[in-house]
Amino acid sequence: MSDSETIGVVGGGQLGRMLAEAAAPLGVEVVVLDPTPECPASPVARDQIVGDFDDEEGIEELAARADYVTYEIELADPDVLERVADRHDVPVNPDPDTLRTIQDKLVQNRALRDAGVPVPDFRRVDDREDLLDAIEEFGYPVMLKAREGGYDGRGNVPIADESEVEEALEGVDGGAVVEEFVDFEREVSIIGVKGDGETAAFPLGENVHREEILRETVVPARTSEAVTERAREVAEDVLAMLSGRGVYGIELFETGEGEILVNEIAPRPHNSGHYTIEGALTSQFEQHARAVTGRPLGATDLRSPVVSANLLGDGDERRDANPTGDEAILAHPGASLHWYGKHEVYPLRKMGHLTVVQRSSESTDELLEAARDLREEVTFE
Amino acid sequence: MSDSETIGVVGGGQLGRMLAEAAAPLGVEVVVLDPTPECPASPVARDQIVGDFDDEEGIEELAARADYVTYEIELADPDVLERVADRHDVPVNPDPDTLRTIQDKLVQNRALRDAGVPVPDFRRVDDREDLLDAIEEFGYPVMLKAREGGYDGRGNVPIADESEVEEALEGVDGGAVVEEFVDFEREVSIIGVKGDGETAAFPLGENVHREEILRETVVPARTSEAVTERAREVAEDVLAMLSGRGVYGIELFETGEGEILVNEIAPRPHNSGHYTIEGALTSQFEQHARAVTGRPLGATDLRSPVVSANLLGDGDERRDANPTGDEAILAHPGASLHWYGKHEVYPLRKMGHLTVVQRSSESTDELLEAARDLREEVTFE
Repeated sequence: MSDSETIGVVGGGQLGRMLAEAAAPLGVEVVVLDPTPECPASPVARDQIVGDFDDEEGIEELAARADYVTYEIELADPDVLERVADRHDVPVNPDPDTLRTIQDKLVQNRALRDAGVPVPDFRRVDDREDLLDAIEEFGYPVMLKAREGGYDGRGNVPIADESEVEEALEGVDGGAVVEEFVDFEREVSIIGVKGDGETAAFPLGENVHREEILRETVVPARTSEAVTERAREVAEDVLAMLSGRGVYGIELFETGEGEILVNEIAPRPHNSGHYTIEGALTSQFEQHARAVTGRPLGATDLRSPVVSANLLGDGDERRDANPTGDEAILAHPGASLHWYGKHEVYPLRKMGHLTVVQRSSESTDELLEAARDLREEVTFE
Repeated sequence: MSDSETIGVVGGGQLGRMLAEAAAPLGVEVVVLDPTPECPASPVARDQIVGDFDDEEGIEELAARADYVTYEIELADPDVLERVADRHDVPVNPDPDTLRTIQDKLVQNRALRDAGVPVPDFRRVDDREDLLDAIEEFGYPVMLKAREGGYDGRGNVPIADESEVEEALEGVDGGAVVEEFVDFEREVSIIGVKGDGETAAFPLGENVHREEILRETVVPARTSEAVTERAREVAEDVLAMLSGRGVYGIELFETGEGEILVNEIAPRPHNSGHYTIEGALTSQFEQHARAVTGRPLGATDLRSPVVSANLLGDGDERRDANPTGDEAILAHPGASLHWYGKHEVYPLRKMGHLTVVQRSSESTDELLEAARDLREEVTFE
């Protein structure tokens, strides 16, 4: 192309990295803004601007160099994005207003409820009394969630009984939401995409969390057809209420009664959609690049059953990352490896992921077992 | 990784670009050496050194920054590579001596013949008399090939009768080889890989050329099991005679009698292996990165039948490239697009390629028709 198109991305972590990997084949270049020099996206991006996610000068520079602006982290600042987009006449997607809605868990829950999307019952919590009132209504346990700054399970505090109330309140001092505790059968998610006058949704994935962090995603989810269909309907309703092109991670609960409730939404490619790189006809990252640039969306068909597993930091402290054991993943037929190029490791940090696709007739249970076994081989010394 | 590994690549064209795209998930960075500023690989490489393929200073710098050196173009200079590798104690793969063998079509043919690999009958041509002697032996038509500088069909001149002898000789003035004309049933190829103590081979692809340029590759090749098996044996023999880790493109003729002859070998990822990105469990580019860095090789299973088609420059002259019509490719379920980021287009220049994979039960004929139809949509204005 005489004039390659460029996406400017606020954030240059693993999502920005995988976005850059996926955008190149479309003839689209990526420039990222990230505070950490040599951030994960930098080796595969055209360039990195070093600056904070809400640094207006950095975002100015990004917008000046880009034909389209997006973000890969909820910590982006919607007000700054709106101002800069106006000044540079560059479209920002998803819409900064969508980011604003999603950033505040209370506003998000209200918007979903108002749109008729099923969510767990919730109450606003500004102080101790609000919380105790809600607990009286819901009964223990409940889930307390910080209104802002929470994503990927951060800022979510379960409260099992009275003894945990005080500590929970201390953890969320900028205002919170309390939700009835959902005794879910399984956690599932759908990666949805809003394009230019079209929407698409990837197959339902089943997510296994531990310590509030995603460990594995199994696709297709091991649930009934009725639940799968219901999840798809809910995802469509969610997409309809959101504004702005791009990929959305829609986290769902499946209750014991086969009901679907929306847990939370991420306005960006999502960890539970990493399986799409090998598992689907189009990856969530390519879809995001297509959507943000106004290109047609790709097919979301599953190519084969697939399991992804996160490679999380081990040990007790922050230190240089020297991963070993990934040869086992490389040598396993049907397994793929994705390192994020992070220079330091700390406990539970997302350092990479692996994917195992079906080669012949392995069940999803077998794929999951293989993925877990392979993950166990990796350590960071 | 505290210390990401880096591959230094001589050449930063589309092969270097797709190598960089594939190396990143392994945690491997790429630096390229290429004479064209903003070469195709540059947006996804950590860095580009601007310099000629045989520029010793540039290769010095490349080797100083890399843990491994490879090349994506036969125009690399094996002597320079050997010297620099020694000085910097950096491994170069494939072995520069293999490059030397392959660069000279006469030496290549002799090495193959000496290793018991079937090749078309050939004679050395230093002058007009050599050529006429060989023609007397083989009869018309024959294929005259420049000993050096020929790749991707360049420097190959068919001679149909006496009237074409003089012009053909003018086209190959640095010494040539003349080969008996192979009246092939089809052209096929195998992408082979030499790893660290292991080899692998991708499925047999069937190649359609026009004007000596690859147009489409159909996989699996539409031929018999016996021919497929024979091609695999020949590819294994070729790999056994080559020295150095990496991917090799092995171009073959299938004769009317089902015989397999080696046409030529490329010591690098090959245009006829682009289908592996979507079509196989591991792509040829990832395999090359694995092989060159001494990592385990990946599985070469086909994921589904697949066809790739080149997007070649149109028109009559060199000009800025403004591709249009690629939306049709993006909108076609099962199709994938790969632009190479070239700023200028000229007739038959390789600008990109597309791949169509099987979604349900389409035949390879149907996939080929779809790929051709989609290609027709693209123009460069």
